[in-house]
Amino acid sequence: MTAVRGETRARLLDTALGLFTVHGVEGTSLQMIADALGVTKAAVYYHFRTKDEITEAVVEPALDELVAILDRAATMPRPGPRADYLIGEFVDLVVRNRVLVAVLCSDPGVNRAVDRILHGEQNVMTRLPAMLAGPDADEGTEVAAHVALAGVAMAGGSPALTGMDDETLRRHLVDAMRRQLGRPRRRDTP
Amino acid sequence: MTAVRGETRARLLDTALGLFTVHGVEGTSLQMIADALGVTKAAVYYHFRTKDEITEAVVEPALDELVAILDRAATMPRPGPRADYLIGEFVDLVVRNRVLVAVLCSDPGVNRAVDRILHGEQNVMTRLPAMLAGPDADEGTEVAAHVALAGVAMAGGSPALTGMDDETLRRHLVDAMRRQLGRPRRRDTP
Repeated sequence: MTAVRGETRARLLDTALGLFTVHGVEGTSLQMIADALGVTKAAVYYHFRTKDEITEAVVEPALDELVAILDRAATMPRPGPRADYLIGEFVDLVVRNRVLVAVLCSDPGVNRAVDRILHGEQNVMTRLPAMLAGPDADEGTEVAAHVALAGVAMAGGSPALTGMDDETLRRHLVDAMRRQLGRPRRRDTP
Repeated sequence: MTAVRGETRARLLDTALGLFTVHGVEGTSLQMIADALGVTKAAVYYHFRTKDEITEAVVEPALDELVAILDRAATMPRPGPRADYLIGEFVDLVVRNRVLVAVLCSDPGVNRAVDRILHGEQNVMTRLPAMLAGPDADEGTEVAAHVALAGVAMAGGSPALTGMDDETLRRHLVDAMRRQLGRPRRRDTP
């Protein structure tokens, strides 16, 4: 892919995500994406044949990152450092994808795209809390891991916190998640 | 309303909620609800004229309870006891409505019904974190309140925890929420 084509593709995906947040995946057409970009529908077809393909391309990079984080965490034998790593990386991923996460939490069209990409083979939503809680977790720790993950994802995408800048949100989410999971406060926290 | 009519109405709403969890609000028709109940569509029309009315009736009792909890909390002057009250009542409401909460977190049709009932007048989703965090909350506490509320709601409706009985789930969610908000552990926790 040339630089220009890659740039157009990235702009197309940003525009699609913006339209998804307003109209939902169902309510967004290829024509609307073309209009918002100021190009013809044929130009959109040059990159993607269907809206499903666009939705998958919008979701895929963040999902790939999440799987990579889990694979890396799986190689860490000690539960403490593994939890620290997962907390830091998960919060960072959520904050860098705030807009996407907000849509992900509310749009069944986006959730269907996630299911198509994962084909149920690699259930991220099961692996993540299990790895965060650790292999010998009691029920309370298991519930805490679910509360922490879902809470951070939802709060990260919440309209109520859109006014907070990324760095501040990241710091408070890490603190919240560490507190929830009984991890000591980080030394670099002011 | 007579007892028999009330009972039929309750059974109809339970059936509708069950169908919503499988097919979503969009994918559920009045005919499907009638078929699942083993009655005619006319019998359904006797209680509700549209699917919108049914969806609102499914959501309304829990929403009314939530507003009542917030109104009661608003009369409590001390932040500590108010937070304790909100945590206990919110978790209890989520656990008693696990199936509904699961649909609420993922179905835009149900969310639209919530918006119609509230008409944006009384924004529960804004009042709740604000009241939980308290009037002079710093940013960190504000984020923690969002994480705790969203986390408890999502974990309460999570398919991963459906195997856990209500009482166990309630206890662990209260513990998780108290820890998140820096409240001391309850004395009755084993």
